[in-house]
Amino acid sequence: MRSWHINGERLLDDLNHLSSFGARPEGGIDRPAFSPACSEASRWLAERMREASLGARIDAAGNVIGRLGPDDGSAILIGSHIDTVPGGGPLDGSLGVIAGLECLRSLSESGANLDRAVEVIAFSDEEGAYLSMLGSRAMTGTLTETEVDTAHGRKGDRLADAMATAGFDIRKLHQAERTRQSMSNYLELHIEQGPVLESRGLDVGIVDSIIGIDVSEYVLHGQARHAGTTPMGERRDAGRAAAEAIVHAFDDLDLRAVPEARITFGDIEIKPGASNVVPGHARILSEIRAIRIQDMRQIRNGVDSAFDSAAARHTVRLEKRYLSGDVPSVMAPDMIDLIGQICIDLDHKFMVMPSGASHDASNFASLVPSGMIFVASRGGVSHHPDEYSEPKSLVTGTNVLFETVRRLLARSNGGSR
Amino acid sequence: MRSWHINGERLLDDLNHLSSFGARPEGGIDRPAFSPACSEASRWLAERMREASLGARIDAAGNVIGRLGPDDGSAILIGSHIDTVPGGGPLDGSLGVIAGLECLRSLSESGANLDRAVEVIAFSDEEGAYLSMLGSRAMTGTLTETEVDTAHGRKGDRLADAMATAGFDIRKLHQAERTRQSMSNYLELHIEQGPVLESRGLDVGIVDSIIGIDVSEYVLHGQARHAGTTPMGERRDAGRAAAEAIVHAFDDLDLRAVPEARITFGDIEIKPGASNVVPGHARILSEIRAIRIQDMRQIRNGVDSAFDSAAARHTVRLEKRYLSGDVPSVMAPDMIDLIGQICIDLDHKFMVMPSGASHDASNFASLVPSGMIFVASRGGVSHHPDEYSEPKSLVTGTNVLFETVRRLLARSNGGSR
Repeated sequence: MRSWHINGERLLDDLNHLSSFGARPEGGIDRPAFSPACSEASRWLAERMREASLGARIDAAGNVIGRLGPDDGSAILIGSHIDTVPGGGPLDGSLGVIAGLECLRSLSESGANLDRAVEVIAFSDEEGAYLSMLGSRAMTGTLTETEVDTAHGRKGDRLADAMATAGFDIRKLHQAERTRQSMSNYLELHIEQGPVLESRGLDVGIVDSIIGIDVSEYVLHGQARHAGTTPMGERRDAGRAAAEAIVHAFDDLDLRAVPEARITFGDIEIKPGASNVVPGHARILSEIRAIRIQDMRQIRNGVDSAFDSAAARHTVRLEKRYLSGDVPSVMAPDMIDLIGQICIDLDHKFMVMPSGASHDASNFASLVPSGMIFVASRGGVSHHPDEYSEPKSLVTGTNVLFETVRRLLARSNGGSR
Repeated sequence: MRSWHINGERLLDDLNHLSSFGARPEGGIDRPAFSPACSEASRWLAERMREASLGARIDAAGNVIGRLGPDDGSAILIGSHIDTVPGGGPLDGSLGVIAGLECLRSLSESGANLDRAVEVIAFSDEEGAYLSMLGSRAMTGTLTETEVDTAHGRKGDRLADAMATAGFDIRKLHQAERTRQSMSNYLELHIEQGPVLESRGLDVGIVDSIIGIDVSEYVLHGQARHAGTTPMGERRDAGRAAAEAIVHAFDDLDLRAVPEARITFGDIEIKPGASNVVPGHARILSEIRAIRIQDMRQIRNGVDSAFDSAAARHTVRLEKRYLSGDVPSVMAPDMIDLIGQICIDLDHKFMVMPSGASHDASNFASLVPSGMIFVASRGGVSHHPDEYSEPKSLVTGTNVLFETVRRLLARSNGGSR
């Protein structure tokens, strides 16, 4: 098997070009799904695909798809996204798409005669400006009618209208769904968005699972009272109850020692919010992440009971509400082994690790053997203008992706190349 | 000693009339200092004083003063305030002023020949629309030039301008100061604003001390990070540190078991405030109240060290800042005894208790023997449209105040009446 490499300079040039769409003068990128900047980037991407002689199309969900090889039959999919969070960085999503494009160009230039197609896909609205992972969920048929009908942006604008403005008809969204037979594998290269690879000095992370997420709301109804005239023993302090619940939820997690599990209380609101008034109201969002469903359930029970007992201790009424979530997903062991072997062959230092963030890959992992490759993020920073990875890492990651595609193709071609 | 009573109907009528100034259509009273509504109420009050043949004047701070008896020599002062918080109730402050007016009217009607003057005073801006207790602090000479110069309202408007609009010259504020020799005693009747008297079924509370207040700010600087990709052990979670500090500060207070001490964390802000971002920033106002200065210091040390150790545990940087405070003040034991004896003589059930809220009385307690009388607040509610006390309680409290004035006058008259 001859060793091939992608064109690193072309990869970095395209990444650089893509980062200009929606760039803020002061740094950071605003490229939410269905915005003019995102539509412009999609058209540019489709043009780059055509330049590389790929079949290029934009489907009913706004997914931009480039295809190399036979028009019929199953394809190896390489996906990620080109939309960004507000003030996002140049790599989250974009790396995976441009790396996929580069793999198809390099394959095409290698003159290989493909028995199986390879596609690169930029999925629509991964970041959830309207509906998180809209594109990959439309393609895998997991959207519900209700969530599509009610989806709206931060300003209250409806998904249907945003799609119409960008030239799409929400009633045709179902046309983006594909059969399982049309896909043989799913691959995604992404920046880690965490500090692990950098701190361990590793080149590549091979994702074995994508963490599940559970977002729940806890509302504590106590009594707002004068801080001076209300004795400590007669208070129904929603803020104190919230602080205790949070501390005990973390303590409970520490005791369980579940690897890679996380609890975050990032959204905490205490009212009425005056220094001389005992808080009568507290609203806390709890976000739980874990790799195994049974762990998620146990951790959530722990958070629930921390809130239950804090509420009881302070005679405040507790309302619990489940808001949203994604179940954990597992990458194919065979794909983990394949990518690991490639790292060994190419002499890259790697580790197998879970992904703490959600990715389009989650939606394919239960349908076809899927694999995800991480490269190091400087300082673990993402969703921020300072998001950065060494050019060398970007090229390394893309070469590992390329080699993975080549070996998958070689398998289907009976190892003939 | 003959027993006299105030005119309860007149008291309630005047309270009712006063509550119309600044009344919101939907309930609650907006009558901040130097507002048109407050100026109108001041003029109405001065007019009521003149109708009762009292000497009436409004001083350079906006204090409305009515005087009965000799023009010269020291006076027994009966004070409180007629300004309200936004959406305040009809009794906080107003009761003490109208009760004082009623005492002077009843005294006048009794035909007593007074060797010593008695004054009723409505103090300016007790609620701190611009500068908390401006009027009583101006009268007792405790304002600093800096705080007067920098005082401003919630909308950023300066005290100087607000006073000018209401017809006062801030440069003449010092003219409101009085000599210690011009005052012999200070008395104030107020609603409790807490639940203690009501819950114990008592008629009267005799205040022995007014709690001190210490307001401090704790700012925690951690690191905002992606909730999924940042392992628990690598977080610098300002929100978790805040929750732990709050819990431990309360625990510390519980252990100390200092009677009547309070800690309130009513103003808590967590940023950036998204469910999927580890909080990078937390700002907490701590409000400590205690009766003894040494207790306040120890409790504050306890809060400080709770924040210090939580910050250290989570590697977040802590900034501490003292914002404001009032030292505790103590009512004269002789006045407590006198009022207690009156309650026994008039057959009112009473208790001696601290005041958890600040009052104008704080500023007189270190200058002249001072006494404060509480009546029960329904549900302990205050600073709210639902503020209410039974008419019977209001009359009882005013009668106790009246009898206190009479016995103080009797002392200075050699017990001749």
